[in-house]
Amino acid sequence: MPLVIERMEGVRSAALTWLLPSGCATDPAGIEGVSTLIQELLLRGCGGRSSRDDADAFDQIGGSRSASVGTYAMVVGASMLGRNVEKTLPLLVDMVRTPTMDEESLEASKDLAMQAIDSLKDDPQERAMLAARARHQPSPINRSGLGTKEGLEACTREVVMGHWQAHALPKGSILALAGDVDGSAIESQMNALLAGWVGSAPTPKIGPVGPRGYAHENDPSAQVQIMWIADAPTEASPDSILEKLLISVLSGGMSGRLFSEVREKRGLCYAVSAGYRGDKDWGTMTAYVGTTPQRAQESLDVLQAEIDRITSPAGAVTAQEFQRAKIGMKSSLIFSGESSGARASTIAADIRRLGRPRSLDEMAAEVEAVTLEQLNAYAQQRRWGSVTIQTMGQQGLKV
Amino acid sequence: MPLVIERMEGVRSAALTWLLPSGCATDPAGIEGVSTLIQELLLRGCGGRSSRDDADAFDQIGGSRSASVGTYAMVVGASMLGRNVEKTLPLLVDMVRTPTMDEESLEASKDLAMQAIDSLKDDPQERAMLAARARHQPSPINRSGLGTKEGLEACTREVVMGHWQAHALPKGSILALAGDVDGSAIESQMNALLAGWVGSAPTPKIGPVGPRGYAHENDPSAQVQIMWIADAPTEASPDSILEKLLISVLSGGMSGRLFSEVREKRGLCYAVSAGYRGDKDWGTMTAYVGTTPQRAQESLDVLQAEIDRITSPAGAVTAQEFQRAKIGMKSSLIFSGESSGARASTIAADIRRLGRPRSLDEMAAEVEAVTLEQLNAYAQQRRWGSVTIQTMGQQGLKV
Repeated sequence: MPLVIERMEGVRSAALTWLLPSGCATDPAGIEGVSTLIQELLLRGCGGRSSRDDADAFDQIGGSRSASVGTYAMVVGASMLGRNVEKTLPLLVDMVRTPTMDEESLEASKDLAMQAIDSLKDDPQERAMLAARARHQPSPINRSGLGTKEGLEACTREVVMGHWQAHALPKGSILALAGDVDGSAIESQMNALLAGWVGSAPTPKIGPVGPRGYAHENDPSAQVQIMWIADAPTEASPDSILEKLLISVLSGGMSGRLFSEVREKRGLCYAVSAGYRGDKDWGTMTAYVGTTPQRAQESLDVLQAEIDRITSPAGAVTAQEFQRAKIGMKSSLIFSGESSGARASTIAADIRRLGRPRSLDEMAAEVEAVTLEQLNAYAQQRRWGSVTIQTMGQQGLKV
Repeated sequence: MPLVIERMEGVRSAALTWLLPSGCATDPAGIEGVSTLIQELLLRGCGGRSSRDDADAFDQIGGSRSASVGTYAMVVGASMLGRNVEKTLPLLVDMVRTPTMDEESLEASKDLAMQAIDSLKDDPQERAMLAARARHQPSPINRSGLGTKEGLEACTREVVMGHWQAHALPKGSILALAGDVDGSAIESQMNALLAGWVGSAPTPKIGPVGPRGYAHENDPSAQVQIMWIADAPTEASPDSILEKLLISVLSGGMSGRLFSEVREKRGLCYAVSAGYRGDKDWGTMTAYVGTTPQRAQESLDVLQAEIDRITSPAGAVTAQEFQRAKIGMKSSLIFSGESSGARASTIAADIRRLGRPRSLDEMAAEVEAVTLEQLNAYAQQRRWGSVTIQTMGQQGLKV
């Protein structure tokens, strides 16, 4: 397991991100949702301590820990004072290696997981996002992470425990710490705590891409949700930095094109944004508009027009926009460099996607090296390909 | 206007919070919502620059700014690199002193404000919170900040501009900066930028407290929202720190009583929390549960039982809980001390509520000075008084 430790000057806090290869994409057919239950059960007792005693042990050192299920990984996170890292690590290792997962906690966790599925009814934006992803990405990375009611129901204690033991293994795991930390002390402590922890988890098989195209779901809510997804470069691709700058021109800062054209100039919607996610084997460009039924069609039309325009000669990125996008990205890097939590999380994500962490300086240099000519050459040949559009509201739109 | 500047070591960022005495409580009868429109209009051009050019000016220096309407104040905020503070201040002063507020922007802002009111339909938690506050607090500090459709409709450009000019004045304003900043340079720059800015705003008249008690609103959502509000000490009261520790025992960290009893042990709800807000002339203790219709009654019963138990001899705070609450609060202070944004915002709030800012060390010493005996003596005599309970869902509960 790669262990990367970054000391940050001027902070007293420390943060940890531990990725374990047990994301929702690893849930076997028939027990979809097992990862969601594990996420809850990791916080309900371990190392022979009850749920309450374990929470109390963290609270007694002023630290906090979390578990959240991603597509590929279970993300165990912690934040604490740097001087308490040594006391915190054994608690986190217990969470990962010896969770209790008792029957009573399993039942309570199932109830909460079922409630989470039910509560989606009240969250049309989240539902639209999940529906769009389900139709865009290949199985099983198109999953919601919430699981299914049938899958949750089928999870016995043996099944849940067995799944975690087969996946929470060092090969495929990544551990990153950042902040007020002492690298060599942590390394020897972790080596001792993880003695005897061996093995590797199976990786999920990726199916063909989803059906994509347009779909609408009727929903009685007062708003209309519009989600738009296209494929984009992987994080490791040399095009990744160009895609980031392009999306920043569309949606970064306060003068991005989408905000100016869709929200400000025309008052069409209360929310509009676009984002890029570069993963290891895929990337996506996602856009979102939340608006009223009366303005939904025009909002979608203007959104699509702006997305298309940036790849046309008439919509080429201007020198001013380019400057703005670069400054915005470099400023964000500096801000994130002041947060131990943001650094630990970025380091872990870099290792998973690129095989190595980038320093803040390296990331700033990547931004700096791009020229306007390169960006526009990239934009002019960018084709959005087979996109997915999902709407949710009182009636469908014309795409 | 008080100007407080706090230099933080080890950061390159800087943040600013500027409170102007123009919160929604100052909206005159008949034009409720004028502050909401101003919040939007401050970001749509000033100092002779168009909306787009103004946004671009911030983006060009990698800074960001915001305006948000509170009960008492319009909160203008900015974050930037410390080296760009000098370039940012004139832009912020323009926002406050010379917003354009043109007709076209006013119309777009009205549309967005109307959409915000409509979108409440899809957010039962927010609606429950607003309904509880409306019945608990005296007018006009019981307002939502969204305004009313009639009030928004009645806002002409003259009305909006006149309201801002009568309220965005130095007496009652507070400006705080924190981060990588040079105090004396900022002070002389601000003195120059604010030359000729004089006057004081009228303060809103406070009416009698609301009707309080229990109310239910029918809502077709899949969840039930439960809000609970009681009066609590003001921030300046010596009891404020005791109330904070008490609420921390109930709801702080991961082993707080509400989380343990309501969510974990019984799996009754997906969300439960309690919080304290100490203001200048009032304080509130607020509790929230989000759950399913089947579990709503039991959730409310357990919530109420835990709130009552902590004031009874049988529910006295234990030494372990006390220790945990203190450590949690002191750790949070250290974490917040690493964020320039959190510091600027706390300094401004302190000046408004206490008349002076507290240092992080002073706040830590306040926590440290409390003994378990003091806390339990406070708890045993704490009476919740005339509380407000608001539920929202498919049917009412028994309180």
